[in-house]
Order: sequence, then C-alpha cells, then structure tokens
Amino acid sequence: MPPFPSSVVIREVGLRDGLQSIETLLPTPQKIEWIDDAYAAGQREIEVGSFVPARLLPQLADTAELVAHAKALPGLLVSVLVPNLKGAERAIEAQADLLLVPLSASRAHSLANLRKTPDEVVAEVARIRAARDAAGSKTLIEGGIGTAFGCTIQGAVEQSEVLRCMQALLDAGADRVSLADTVGYANPAAVRDVFEKARRIAGDKLWCGHFHDTRGLALANVYAALETGVARFDATLAGIGGCPHAPGASGNAASEDLAFMLADMGIATGIDIERLLALRAKISQWLSNETLHGTLWLAGLPKTFSAQSIHAHSA
Amino acid sequence: MPPFPSSVVIREVGLRDGLQSIETLLPTPQKIEWIDDAYAAGQREIEVGSFVPARLLPQLADTAELVAHAKALPGLLVSVLVPNLKGAERAIEAQADLLLVPLSASRAHSLANLRKTPDEVVAEVARIRAARDAAGSKTLIEGGIGTAFGCTIQGAVEQSEVLRCMQALLDAGADRVSLADTVGYANPAAVRDVFEKARRIAGDKLWCGHFHDTRGLALANVYAALETGVARFDATLAGIGGCPHAPGASGNAASEDLAFMLADMGIATGIDIERLLALRAKISQWLSNETLHGTLWLAGLPKTFSAQSIHAHSA
Repeated sequence: MPPFPSSVVIREVGLRDGLQSIETLLPTPQKIEWIDDAYAAGQREIEVGSFVPARLLPQLADTAELVAHAKALPGLLVSVLVPNLKGAERAIEAQADLLLVPLSASRAHSLANLRKTPDEVVAEVARIRAARDAAGSKTLIEGGIGTAFGCTIQGAVEQSEVLRCMQALLDAGADRVSLADTVGYANPAAVRDVFEKARRIAGDKLWCGHFHDTRGLALANVYAALETGVARFDATLAGIGGCPHAPGASGNAASEDLAFMLADMGIATGIDIERLLALRAKISQWLSNETLHGTLWLAGLPKTFSAQSIHAHSA
Repeated sequence: MPPFPSSVVIREVGLRDGLQSIETLLPTPQKIEWIDDAYAAGQREIEVGSFVPARLLPQLADTAELVAHAKALPGLLVSVLVPNLKGAERAIEAQADLLLVPLSASRAHSLANLRKTPDEVVAEVARIRAARDAAGSKTLIEGGIGTAFGCTIQGAVEQSEVLRCMQALLDAGADRVSLADTVGYANPAAVRDVFEKARRIAGDKLWCGHFHDTRGLALANVYAALETGVARFDATLAGIGGCPHAPGASGNAASEDLAFMLADMGIATGIDIERLLALRAKISQWLSNETLHGTLWLAGLPKTFSAQSIHAHSA
C-alpha cells in the first residue's frame, strides 16, 4: 500500500463555493473576520471569492476588497475563481496569488453553466495565460476540471474526456490542474482510478481534489485521492455549499471534519482544530437560516486525539 | 494499488445494534416485516437480535422468535449476539447460523460493559466452542473485537493488545474474528494498518468490519478496510444505533449509503437499493421519534447509477 503524504493543505473555499450556493448574503466585515479567524486557526490557502459580474453573484461582489485584505496576511495563498479573461484580468490586477478557471468536462454542463464548450474554455485559458505573462504577473493559473465524475444534466462523463481536457489545459498554459466532483457523483474507486491517471499526465501540476458530500462520500473520496498522492483538498467550513434547490442533500467536504480525519491519521495540516470549531460556531450564528453539515462539532474530538495531533504537527 | 473484492456482504445489524441503542421499542411484527423486506431487497445476512436477559434489553426480548422466523428464509444467514455461554446455549438451541461474542480490547470498557476482562471473555469463548461441539451444532462462532480503535473510557487501545486478543480468540476456537470501532474513534489509516496485520493473523477467518459514523468516517473506514480485502461489513438501515446519550452524534454506517457506495464502485452486493430505500422510508415512520442518519434517501441515486448497478450485478 502506498504511503500517505506527510502534510496536506486544506484550501478553504467556503467564502466562494459555500457562499455562492446559499441564500444568506454575508456582509464584508464578517467575511473578513472569517478570513482572519481561519488564518489564525492555521489555514494558509483560502479562495476568497470570484471575479464574476456582481449582478450574477451579488454574494461575491466584494471579492477585490477581500483579496486586498487577505494579501496582507503573511504566508496566506489567496485564490479566486474566474470564469473568463475579464475576470482573470481583475484577479491579476488585484494580485491574487492564484486564479482558478473552471472547466466542465461535461459538454452539456459546460454549455448550461459557462455558455462555452470545454475547448472554448481551454482557448480562454490560453488567452489568460498570455495576459498573465504580458502583465508580468505572478498569479498562478489553475484549471479546475469539474463534473469529472458525472453530471446531473448529461449523466456519464467519459474518463478519456476528463483526461483530454486536463492535457489541453496544461498545453494551454495552466500552471496547475485539479479535479472536482461538482455534483457529488464520485465514488472512491473512480477517484482512485482517475487521480492515478491524472498524475501520469500532470505530475506535480496535479494540484487539488474537490469533493461534495451529496451522498456521504466526500471523506472516503478524499482518502482515495490521498492514497494516490494528492496533498491538497478543497473544503468548506460547516460543509456549506452545493445546490440550493436540494436542501440538506448537498454540501462540500466539511473543513473541520477533514482536518480531524487528516490529523488523526498523523498527517500534518497546520490547523488548530479547536480554533476552527470556534470559527464554525461563529459562522453557524451568521448563517442561522442555512443548512449546515459536518459531524465533529457535535461529536467532539476523541479522547485519544490530542497526543496524535501534537505528534502530527511535530513530525 | 490492490484490487477490490468483487462482491461484498452487508450484514444488517439494525435489529440488534440499532434497536438496542434507541428508546423506541419496536414490536415483533414490525421486526419481522423488517427482516422480510430486507431479505426481499437482497440482504442475506442479518443479525436479528441478542440473547441477553430480557430485563437488561427488553427491546431484544423476542430474539428467539425472530431467529425462528428468519431461519425459514432460504439462504439467509441468521446471526445473533451473545454475551456469554448462557446466551450461546440459547443461540445453539435456536439454531442460529452464527453467534457473535463481543470482546472489548479496552480492559476498562470490557470491565464496565461485560464485567469481564478480555481474557475472561476468551475463556468464555472456549467454553462456548466446547458446548457447540458437544451439541453437534453447526452454529458458527464469531469473536468480535470491539473498541479496536480506542475507547471513550480508557482512551488509547494498543494495537498489539487488539491483535493479541484476536489470536487468543482463534486459539480458543472462534471460527471467525471481526474488528469493531465501537465508539467511532477509527480513521482510515488506522483501519488500513490494523486490518492488514489482522489478515496476517487470521487469514480467511477475518470476517467483518464494523464502523460507527460518529465523526463522519464510517464509509472512509469501510473503504480503507475494503482495500485490505475485507468483504463483509456491518451496517444499520438509516444508520440507527450508537450512543443514546449523544443525540445525532452517533450511528452505524448506514446500510443504504454503503450499498450505494459499493454498487457504484462496481462491487456486487446483491442488494436492490430502491427496495432498501423503500424499507428505510417504512422504518423512518416506525422510528419517527428517533434521529436517523444517511444521505442517499435525501439525495437520491445519481443519473449515472443504474447502468453501473446492473453491471455490478451481472459481473
């Protein structure tokens, strides 16, 4: 059996994938408090928002302000999602450390959500890369391949198409590529299979796994990806996110549950789980009308945990 | 990476581990309906109850009647839990196909719950084996090692002690041995590690994995065990069970979620998931005052599922 990575990054995407999927509009001061508390709890990568037109996602209209604030925190990698060149130009101007361009491997999902085919997104990534290089910017470009395990519109998504898109994104100049189970269709066998193959294509540019907990498999899927060497996962505090039209059924992997699983396995995350749980409690007040997820906040840490946690951090 | 087992048995323990942990006392006719419907849905191993004094667990006082009923269903492996020789004699008399004797690897938990040390339980298994052989009975004896990943009373449980108990149970005449995360302390790295070592000790006598979902890791832990070759898991419909003193925090792996995960991975379980979900809906009416668990009942099967499921069953 393969060894596990000795350390793993949990990238907090609650401020983007979480907040864009719920009804509550979180005010900017609370988002800043979230970023500050997550940072204080040890999180070092945060997707703070998305550069999309404010009329489409008013919840994320303050992204530039959040990038500016987050950039001041030493050692924090600040990322944003951008749907196109225009958004990428704003990300570059804001000096985000990383911009993520989503590509849907499902053609039907891509047309419905991005109004582009997957190959048109690849072409946009090439333009973004040119713009980034022309600007002399250091902003990293990540191509995030969504609906990589199936699609609610199209149904099956061929693995060969997922891997073809990955190669195309790399060829177009993406610095990083990731795989996302956008709709909660992945199972750990499929995860193991496609991440192994993706590693052969992308090597160290294979950056992140993104799993939804729609059918309770997010952590099993993380574990399967972890075994293939993936060392970075998206997650949202309290598991917020997913589809607003299926209350309770969806949500991302919960950051606090994932942090616990990894630490309990002896894998360093740099996260102080007690502090993260305190932030979760705060957010559960802010989002009191939303369905939250996760188990650790209720069950608490096991009696055996602290020694292992200290071990993980000192290892 | 290792191959997965081509087929896996989900042993339904809701009628025992589930019902003993909740307040509702389910009447015998409903338990019989549960057994019949689970059988009709394709489940072929069911733990129908426990031979303990009725004053200790009135919820399970009808176990003999349930064994008699379940025995009439062709091809169903009917198991019961017994705490001691006296319970084993009742199981043998009832002609249960399998009796499970729980042993707590945590000495503190063992003394608190069984009023015996682990080695006294081993000695009891030897007496049970002698009684079974003397009776010319075919009832299989399974030694189930609980608190195998830690204990809420004692804290850490040494892996060496878990494996020592396993060897002692085999030496005492257990036909099968299993590992249980009684209190929801396991993580997939620990699962992988101890099941690999257990396999070397017990070979094909290593029978079953039993995981609680206290911290959302039941399915990840199943997956980790599956990779070591374990092909039988305990689960309860709607994830009922766990500790009645921590509402919502506990519960077993949910049978229907586990059945989905396995089928979606292409592993045959023989279970018709739609039928199992229909039974879950029935049970949610019967147990309307209890906290139920699981995700599939709410999220539904993915659009990509049916083809894979048929494939799994015909493979």
